[in-house]
Amino acid sequence: MTTATSIFAPVERDLSTLIDNLTSLVEAQHPILGAAAEHLFSAGGKRIRPAIVLLVSRATIKGKDLTHKHRRLAEITEMIHTASLVHDDVVDEAELRRQVATVNSLFGNRVAVLAGDFLFAQSSWYLANLDNLQVVKLLSEVIRDFAEGEIQQGLSCFDTDVTLETYLQKSYFKTASLIANSAKAAAILSGETETFANQIYSYGRNLGLAFQIVDDIIDFTSSTEVLGKPAGSDLATGNLTAPVLYAMAEKPALSMLIEREFSEDGDLEQALSLINDSDGIQKARDLAFHHSQLALKDLQCLSPSLATDSLAELTSYVVNRIK
Amino acid sequence: MTTATSIFAPVERDLSTLIDNLTSLVEAQHPILGAAAEHLFSAGGKRIRPAIVLLVSRATIKGKDLTHKHRRLAEITEMIHTASLVHDDVVDEAELRRQVATVNSLFGNRVAVLAGDFLFAQSSWYLANLDNLQVVKLLSEVIRDFAEGEIQQGLSCFDTDVTLETYLQKSYFKTASLIANSAKAAAILSGETETFANQIYSYGRNLGLAFQIVDDIIDFTSSTEVLGKPAGSDLATGNLTAPVLYAMAEKPALSMLIEREFSEDGDLEQALSLINDSDGIQKARDLAFHHSQLALKDLQCLSPSLATDSLAELTSYVVNRIK
Repeated sequence: MTTATSIFAPVERDLSTLIDNLTSLVEAQHPILGAAAEHLFSAGGKRIRPAIVLLVSRATIKGKDLTHKHRRLAEITEMIHTASLVHDDVVDEAELRRQVATVNSLFGNRVAVLAGDFLFAQSSWYLANLDNLQVVKLLSEVIRDFAEGEIQQGLSCFDTDVTLETYLQKSYFKTASLIANSAKAAAILSGETETFANQIYSYGRNLGLAFQIVDDIIDFTSSTEVLGKPAGSDLATGNLTAPVLYAMAEKPALSMLIEREFSEDGDLEQALSLINDSDGIQKARDLAFHHSQLALKDLQCLSPSLATDSLAELTSYVVNRIK
Repeated sequence: MTTATSIFAPVERDLSTLIDNLTSLVEAQHPILGAAAEHLFSAGGKRIRPAIVLLVSRATIKGKDLTHKHRRLAEITEMIHTASLVHDDVVDEAELRRQVATVNSLFGNRVAVLAGDFLFAQSSWYLANLDNLQVVKLLSEVIRDFAEGEIQQGLSCFDTDVTLETYLQKSYFKTASLIANSAKAAAILSGETETFANQIYSYGRNLGLAFQIVDDIIDFTSSTEVLGKPAGSDLATGNLTAPVLYAMAEKPALSMLIEREFSEDGDLEQALSLINDSDGIQKARDLAFHHSQLALKDLQCLSPSLATDSLAELTSYVVNRIK
């Protein structure tokens, strides 16, 4: 099976420089955050977001070397992503992420809130210093979308009236916005036109949606060992994702269990087996595949290069994560 | 006694529009945050920060009407300030602020972290849309300074080696940076020169430092009823402010009590009476007065106007809050 690491070969060295820079930025400035920094940036993340920024950068600068601004943009992308994860874990009182203890569980809410604020703050500083207003706007929109996505998710818990459209919008806010806007920003930094940059935005949006849908499927199909939490955790907390929305249309009993918030013994188990008996997971897979194909088409604007190949491979990697 | 409200007369209507705008922004977008919004923006704050932005704006546009950008800058200033308070209260597990229950105590950490993130996010979006890179940089620096100040304060708890210089730097990060940079940004939006804007920055810096020093004095001299927490709370949590730093130089026994973190019965009471017996509070008052005088001098660049008078009155209001 293709791994994320092999796809990222054209930017492997760039990515390791990036992680070193981020870790030493946090450590140098803040002994208390130092321990958390090590943990933040080396907790087994796949670095998909900065990798996409770096790949789009390499695919658009055509053989020239990456500029300082392209590298900085990739750092900003990873900082914003990490900050949002750290605050999410505080909000969700999560103890594990990717099978590793969370910052809040190891260092407490105090350090977790501060570390997230520090990363958001530093990224907004780095961003302003890219000296490109359009890029500042693109990334500010991402930060706003994150807050929006978290809040929407909170609002729509156990709400069986949620539509697929609302689900996709929330997935855009939570996941696709960062990928789409940072990829577009990389193209802008390379001096590409607005039309070209919007194609890259569309690639990021479709890839991000496919990625989130697949994540939501994996929450049902993987084991506790792989997830670091029991299968069906999203459903248990009332987060209704694509497989559930499709299954509800087929099995009315499922809505009833969700509406009573699994308040009776065996409700959650029954809901999970209704979903498994439905076409919900298959339909969600189809939806993810549809978006990955759109992403692939969006790449037609790029000239051939190793980086372009990697961006194309990512579209199938993302959907093939489901076994 | 002069009140903040009477000083703010030239911008009173602007301030009430601002609060209405902020409250409806949050309410319209987010039912969950709605209740918190009402609470956030009407909890008896004095709106000193947006008032300064509006006064500097009026003092520099010379009779013309405030532009949309000046008003937006004032909103951004209040949003950043409010966001930082909400996160501070999570970090400090505070239950009361200005004798009113905090967002975290009323709505939980979840809503408090989200509300703060939403306000930071929205302010960074508003900021980018002012379409002025210099202003973006000034305010991004503030957000970074906040995180820096919080972290420095965490690092230096009970550290008796803290110097007055470090204390002033932390006070700059926590309080003066927002006032200084947002006041400067208002002058920039009015088209003033860099030299002129730097005078306004200096006004904000000195006023902000005086303000923070006075706040730190009030923590010792006011009653529990006024503070909403027992007198000496800063000291109890190891936050060593100006009165303590001056008192330590006079009373070596005080350092010893602080170094053992008030671990024995009666330690805190003994420390408080050592401070009261020293010239610490008087010297801190002198320091605040010194900065308020510097702030007054910085205003010489402004032509006479009602707004200029208000900015001048603020320098004495700030130090006269100590009874």
